[in-house]
Amino acid sequence: MSSRKVIRGGLVITASDEVHADVLIEDGRIAAVAASDSSAARAWTDAEAVDATGKYVIPGGVDAHTHMEMPFGGTFASDTFETGTRAAAWGGTTTIVDFVVQTVGESLRSGLDTWHGKADGQCAIDYGFHMIMADVTESVLKEMDVLIEEGVTSFKLFMAYPGVFYSDDGRILRAMQRASGNGGLIMMHAENGIAIDVLVQQALAEGRTDPRYHGEVRHALLEAEATHRAIQLARVAGAPLYVVHVSAEQAVAELAAARDKDLPVFGETCPQYLFLSTDNLAEPDFEGAKYVCSTPLRPREHQAALWQALRTNDLQVVSTDHCPFCFAGQKDMGRGDFSKIPNGLPGVENRMDLLHQAVVDGHISRRRWIEIACAAPARMFGLYPRKGTLAPGADADVVIYDPHAEQVVSAQTHHMNVDYSAYEGKRLTGRVHTVLSRGVTVIDDGAYVGHAGHGQYVPRGLSSYLA
Amino acid sequence: MSSRKVIRGGLVITASDEVHADVLIEDGRIAAVAASDSSAARAWTDAEAVDATGKYVIPGGVDAHTHMEMPFGGTFASDTFETGTRAAAWGGTTTIVDFVVQTVGESLRSGLDTWHGKADGQCAIDYGFHMIMADVTESVLKEMDVLIEEGVTSFKLFMAYPGVFYSDDGRILRAMQRASGNGGLIMMHAENGIAIDVLVQQALAEGRTDPRYHGEVRHALLEAEATHRAIQLARVAGAPLYVVHVSAEQAVAELAAARDKDLPVFGETCPQYLFLSTDNLAEPDFEGAKYVCSTPLRPREHQAALWQALRTNDLQVVSTDHCPFCFAGQKDMGRGDFSKIPNGLPGVENRMDLLHQAVVDGHISRRRWIEIACAAPARMFGLYPRKGTLAPGADADVVIYDPHAEQVVSAQTHHMNVDYSAYEGKRLTGRVHTVLSRGVTVIDDGAYVGHAGHGQYVPRGLSSYLA
Amino acid sequence: MSSRKVIRGGLVITASDEVHADVLIEDGRIAAVAASDSSAARAWTDAEAVDATGKYVIPGGVDAHTHMEMPFGGTFASDTFETGTRAAAWGGTTTIVDFVVQTVGESLRSGLDTWHGKADGQCAIDYGFHMIMADVTESVLKEMDVLIEEGVTSFKLFMAYPGVFYSDDGRILRAMQRASGNGGLIMMHAENGIAIDVLVQQALAEGRTDPRYHGEVRHALLEAEATHRAIQLARVAGAPLYVVHVSAEQAVAELAAARDKDLPVFGETCPQYLFLSTDNLAEPDFEGAKYVCSTPLRPREHQAALWQALRTNDLQVVSTDHCPFCFAGQKDMGRGDFSKIPNGLPGVENRMDLLHQAVVDGHISRRRWIEIACAAPARMFGLYPRKGTLAPGADADVVIYDPHAEQVVSAQTHHMNVDYSAYEGKRLTGRVHTVLSRGVTVIDDGAYVGHAGHGQYVPRGLSSYLA
Amino acid sequence: MSSRKVIRGGLVITASDEVHADVLIEDGRIAAVAASDSSAARAWTDAEAVDATGKYVIPGGVDAHTHMEMPFGGTFASDTFETGTRAAAWGGTTTIVDFVVQTVGESLRSGLDTWHGKADGQCAIDYGFHMIMADVTESVLKEMDVLIEEGVTSFKLFMAYPGVFYSDDGRILRAMQRASGNGGLIMMHAENGIAIDVLVQQALAEGRTDPRYHGEVRHALLEAEATHRAIQLARVAGAPLYVVHVSAEQAVAELAAARDKDLPVFGETCPQYLFLSTDNLAEPDFEGAKYVCSTPLRPREHQAALWQALRTNDLQVVSTDHCPFCFAGQKDMGRGDFSKIPNGLPGVENRMDLLHQAVVDGHISRRRWIEIACAAPARMFGLYPRKGTLAPGADADVVIYDPHAEQVVSAQTHHMNVDYSAYEGKRLTGRVHTVLSRGVTVIDDGAYVGHAGHGQYVPRGLSSYLA
Repeated sequence: MSSRKVIRGGLVITASDEVHADVLIEDGRIAAVAASDSSAARAWTDAEAVDATGKYVIPGGVDAHTHMEMPFGGTFASDTFETGTRAAAWGGTTTIVDFVVQTVGESLRSGLDTWHGKADGQCAIDYGFHMIMADVTESVLKEMDVLIEEGVTSFKLFMAYPGVFYSDDGRILRAMQRASGNGGLIMMHAENGIAIDVLVQQALAEGRTDPRYHGEVRHALLEAEATHRAIQLARVAGAPLYVVHVSAEQAVAELAAARDKDLPVFGETCPQYLFLSTDNLAEPDFEGAKYVCSTPLRPREHQAALWQALRTNDLQVVSTDHCPFCFAGQKDMGRGDFSKIPNGLPGVENRMDLLHQAVVDGHISRRRWIEIACAAPARMFGLYPRKGTLAPGADADVVIYDPHAEQVVSAQTHHMNVDYSAYEGKRLTGRVHTVLSRGVTVIDDGAYVGHAGHGQYVPRGLSSYLA
Repeated sequence: MSSRKVIRGGLVITASDEVHADVLIEDGRIAAVAASDSSAARAWTDAEAVDATGKYVIPGGVDAHTHMEMPFGGTFASDTFETGTRAAAWGGTTTIVDFVVQTVGESLRSGLDTWHGKADGQCAIDYGFHMIMADVTESVLKEMDVLIEEGVTSFKLFMAYPGVFYSDDGRILRAMQRASGNGGLIMMHAENGIAIDVLVQQALAEGRTDPRYHGEVRHALLEAEATHRAIQLARVAGAPLYVVHVSAEQAVAELAAARDKDLPVFGETCPQYLFLSTDNLAEPDFEGAKYVCSTPLRPREHQAALWQALRTNDLQVVSTDHCPFCFAGQKDMGRGDFSKIPNGLPGVENRMDLLHQAVVDGHISRRRWIEIACAAPARMFGLYPRKGTLAPGADADVVIYDPHAEQVVSAQTHHMNVDYSAYEGKRLTGRVHTVLSRGVTVIDDGAYVGHAGHGQYVPRGLSSYLA
Repeated sequence: MSSRKVIRGGLVITASDEVHADVLIEDGRIAAVAASDSSAARAWTDAEAVDATGKYVIPGGVDAHTHMEMPFGGTFASDTFETGTRAAAWGGTTTIVDFVVQTVGESLRSGLDTWHGKADGQCAIDYGFHMIMADVTESVLKEMDVLIEEGVTSFKLFMAYPGVFYSDDGRILRAMQRASGNGGLIMMHAENGIAIDVLVQQALAEGRTDPRYHGEVRHALLEAEATHRAIQLARVAGAPLYVVHVSAEQAVAELAAARDKDLPVFGETCPQYLFLSTDNLAEPDFEGAKYVCSTPLRPREHQAALWQALRTNDLQVVSTDHCPFCFAGQKDMGRGDFSKIPNGLPGVENRMDLLHQAVVDGHISRRRWIEIACAAPARMFGLYPRKGTLAPGADADVVIYDPHAEQVVSAQTHHMNVDYSAYEGKRLTGRVHTVLSRGVTVIDDGAYVGHAGHGQYVPRGLSSYLA
Repeated sequence: MSSRKVIRGGLVITASDEVHADVLIEDGRIAAVAASDSSAARAWTDAEAVDATGKYVIPGGVDAHTHMEMPFGGTFASDTFETGTRAAAWGGTTTIVDFVVQTVGESLRSGLDTWHGKADGQCAIDYGFHMIMADVTESVLKEMDVLIEEGVTSFKLFMAYPGVFYSDDGRILRAMQRASGNGGLIMMHAENGIAIDVLVQQALAEGRTDPRYHGEVRHALLEAEATHRAIQLARVAGAPLYVVHVSAEQAVAELAAARDKDLPVFGETCPQYLFLSTDNLAEPDFEGAKYVCSTPLRPREHQAALWQALRTNDLQVVSTDHCPFCFAGQKDMGRGDFSKIPNGLPGVENRMDLLHQAVVDGHISRRRWIEIACAAPARMFGLYPRKGTLAPGADADVVIYDPHAEQVVSAQTHHMNVDYSAYEGKRLTGRVHTVLSRGVTVIDDGAYVGHAGHGQYVPRGLSSYLA
């Protein structure tokens, strides 16, 4: 065989099991998992051994929500596919699903081609694409079917950003009806953008221009309202729904109510909503701009509802919504007018560690950590069982994680191409030690040994949550 | 004194009390109520006596939702203020609140002037006006304050009918904010018209053109969704909300949830939703068109939720949404295309009787009958205590009601200017015997003795539900 | 005629109306109500005029929950029917409904005879009786029917106090079944006394003996649990239910859930739960004992839920549960063992004023004040329309209330026979000016002019909430 | 090595994954799982090969609720540990957890010794024990700690059966408090037995003696009530709770509400509630007695709520409550008095097949089938990861399941020691082909090749749901 490795002596953690086992890798896939003390494991003598004693062996992270080189408000997210996927690898993430943007008036195909052009040959780890539909027309609806054939099986719509990405309820309903037929999954940015824009204009007119007003005008009730509306439209269409970046406890309540009815409704939150708050948005000297994203950060009291929903499975996935803009030169476009601050935070490198900290802090169990960060996003977006688990036959995307290492998060040391960290100075317990992507070592005991172009496009199947 | 009457020996029923009492009328107002067996009552010897022995003495009905001569889809509702208010009197209703329509691009004032012109000198009973805001602009928002001064204190917005009356969520929010400041009450037609219009076009394209499809495309979940949305927008604006013609049990559930939170959210239903159903919409030979209105009739199972909400006070008011169109020449404009059927039913004459039947059937108590049909609409729309009760000082709008009389509803015998009855052939127990409007007899033992022009415009105060 | 009075110029407030009217009293009843500016009112020249200008004219209060001379834990509540009803009159209450206690092993009749003996000829105002059933046997169930005939139409059961008043769920079910047939109303002390007694013993064994532990062991969840259980048992029996002295927000939630289902379930709270809290129970030097009652005072945060429920009508009645024990000689029986502190607070004199303060503070409207303090208890317990309103034909139990007077509550000045006030030092706006009981003046501009024995036993009808 | 087998070519299904893999067994444990097409799998040439091509390879079932030789109402459940565990093996179940009964007045130890005596050397498959606490005293509470050390980590209490197993709320609270400290799991039979016994006596007194009245008197609201009460008591105690044999949709709603609050509350249902109904209880000629169990079968409409809760994870486990009594000689003890019919149904042999049928019928997914029947009960009761999964290191309890085989359930062909089947004549798709218990073949292509005494007592750890 061309290549054979065995990861010895670690605690293998998946969404469902924790076992002391050796993991055999052949040809970039998980070939077998054997009890560490079994003769079967001992027999694997010809494979290159990687020692994981005292460490966790976990599936590589799947970050289902990134925006590399995303155009927004006249600038671009500061991470390219090259810098962003490298940073992801540093943070133990081995697959991202990034968002293609359809330009209004153009085809989905055109957008997809552009994004393939950006990513091809650049990535350190594997990647897939969602499609942002900015212009839902009859021809675009038909294109959805074609894209699904090509592995783009999820389609994002916006109830916010009128004049940019916004779709009205009729367009949303049509897209959902199409998804109901073709098996696609509609992803929703659920905020009532029409109402929010009224509040934005009123705030600016009254001189409330600082970053913290970004949080105030994007009212929690207007996130909950849109979430409820999206759910009802999905019911009318007979389609499933995935709500991105849920931040308000009232929105969580809408998802929980839907799930109590056994509706195919799913939700994602992001580390920034779990660890940051409007306190950050209110930081002086325009520093609050670093934390401007939409949905916005909420008052600290909302965090408990998010953690609870992650435990009760009313939220299934934690993604980053990684969309970095430098403080100098980008975020400061909005001095004196918060509505001009590019929306987005860096985070693709921090997710696995922050969620491990949540294990240490007692918010979630170890298995739930892997579920929300690896298995569930892979299942949700048709990457399972290739990604998100360590089952025989899966891609050998493996992280050896040191649960006892300590680190301090800082822009000084991170690898994302952005001049600040949203978690600057935060102490964390746990750190990535080694990362394999399809059996190839990318991070080796804290050193990057990968290369741009190793990462491949992964066409995705339909969501396995809908099976 | 100029005029003095005493109604002797009846059971005086108000929203709160049932007493055997004599009612003294002076100068068009209720002067006093005395126990029938008191010397105080016996002393009223100089007043004209009206015998009510064995009958109920109740406040005249207040119908807070009528559309006389309403322009809709290229035609006009078939009742004029003259014919419509006369029919109302026949049915025991002594006050209507009709809807002025603002024309897009024109002022509220212009619409109000037009409606005053239609009603002035024509009415058999008193009337007030709500204002339909079809074009919410900055200048229109300012006009709201002026109209409130003139007694037009409630403003209706539509989440349905895009391109006609529809306001988007931003306009709705602005109007609610204004109402929050000036004490006005926002009334809402809560249906997601944007989504419904997609379903309408799909139905027509697929040949589903019969009246019953009107009911199917106007999905109950889309009424509930809009109801929820209106409530959240009202919360953001800090404004009260009144939802008109609630028909779906899911919409009732949204109102009930709001009221459990002690929010100033109110709801109205109409007799057609309580007594009719999609079975009627499905009547053959295009007869279903007689029952086309929006929100639409719902499957029979929804009725229980409406009755329950009337008992639990999650719905406060029963109005008619009286908006009659003749079957011949008007309703039949929609043969082959249900979307062209003028929306509306006749009913202003039937409301008090149908609700008395609900008393007989055990759905509601006698006092609740008076509350939902007289007192609550009067309170809700700033007519209280002039209208809706029999307290000293109130206008002497009084109905002597025979609870034992029997009748069969029919277009043959009704007084509305429309060629069919929605309740044709229905047997009812109870009937209006005598009606006084400000002390003047309008209906006398089943004979109309009133005249056009007796009825006066009643400027309304702010809703007393908001005090 | 024998006696004739007219109360002139006040604002007459009932549960449903506020009118400027003169109230004519003949032979101890309300004969008529006339608009103050009407010729009808002016004609009442031969009646004794009482001036109420600038004041409210309201129905006398109905306190549906008092325990005069109640035996408890080896002592007796310190107010006799004489002192207690006089204090009630001072506070604007003109009817009490007191609790007869059945002795275990004896008949209901025997208890009723005893209580008649205590009250007969002693009372300043009218009174009725509920029956505490401490021993539900077959013969006792049959006695219920007889008592209803005699005007004792409500029956209280205890889920607390095992070995004293406690009934198990089987006895409760049987009593409810009987009430379902005979029209009686089951009143429930809803606390899980079996579980609470375990916690009491554990607390005492661990040396937690101070009064504040009384509040801790009587866990809010155990009130909510019992409330839920009582509701379900009532559903099984097909009987209505009235839950006394609701104090925990979780118990309120159970009532609200029941009412959302349109179940005939009702609830009462008391001023102590609205104005006092566990902060009082924790007062040093054993002063907390003054506030020991069951259900116990709750943390301050529960008050908002109670006020909200009074507004949303999830609670219908405010009674006092007046059951005073002197601090010296009675409350101090429990030094070193909170379980030996007699349970109960004085309050019959303070209720109307405290609730008027709630009007001043914006918690409730004026009409709601009268509803929860006068009309609803009268309706609930079959006293309506004789008591609780000012309608023609009602008993002339009338209070002239000065809404602008100021007072400071104090044991120095109150008229209850107890050596402390639970509201010592509290400043209130509003005060009783004059009180009439069946047309006879009892309090005259702040002076007591009544006499023991004026008050009569009032046999009650069935609850009008169940009609 | 002593023994080595490899199961080749099947679809390996666990609660989390479906992979085409070969399963290597060494020394009675799962040694390794390898992709079927891997060189690692091909290398296992020295192991005995078992062909599973075209079949499922699943963990052996874990039935967490059986009553072998259970004494009840003067008789004993008709399956011994020998016959019952053999039947279990036929049905693909490789572990049972049976209930020891404490005799009132005696120690837990005494009961445990008795049950060990019954089971030792008799069982075809492995077994563990729960403890029924019939007499919660101080000494018994202390014994709980000792039993946990010995692997009896769950304790069942009864809110039903007064005078037999019943514990009052105080005893329940004490046991929960102890469990809160020692890590034990309280299991609850949640029915209000005190109220039910009143209804039973009333029914019998009125001549309603047929089996169907068993269902009527055990009212669904009284199951829901007890479920709610148990949850509140558990909250007060700070203890987890597992509710057995949930059958009423109202009880499911209580569990769902608890889980929405993230409480450690769990629930089990049984196949009889999913597939049978009160229609069966009403079968003529006393045949309904075959279906008498408690909680009782419910009207068919309840089934949808149970299926939904299994999907939404508001119910986590399906056990059988296997407690067979022969129709002749046992069930007929209750002719003329349903309260004398022994409570219980046979089912240990049918569970895995019935739940596979639910997969075929679309109620649940294949992975959820394994979760509710194998993994969740193993986790819940401290058997994981030894039982309930196929992970390396787990006991080699493996079932090769033919998903296409067809069978008809019948007492003629089943292996339980009872003269009827509750599912007589039911056609099922899917059937057990081969069963291994710790690597030893027990069922071989439809033939029993095991022996009494192979099965061992499995001491259990604490519930992993509480970690």
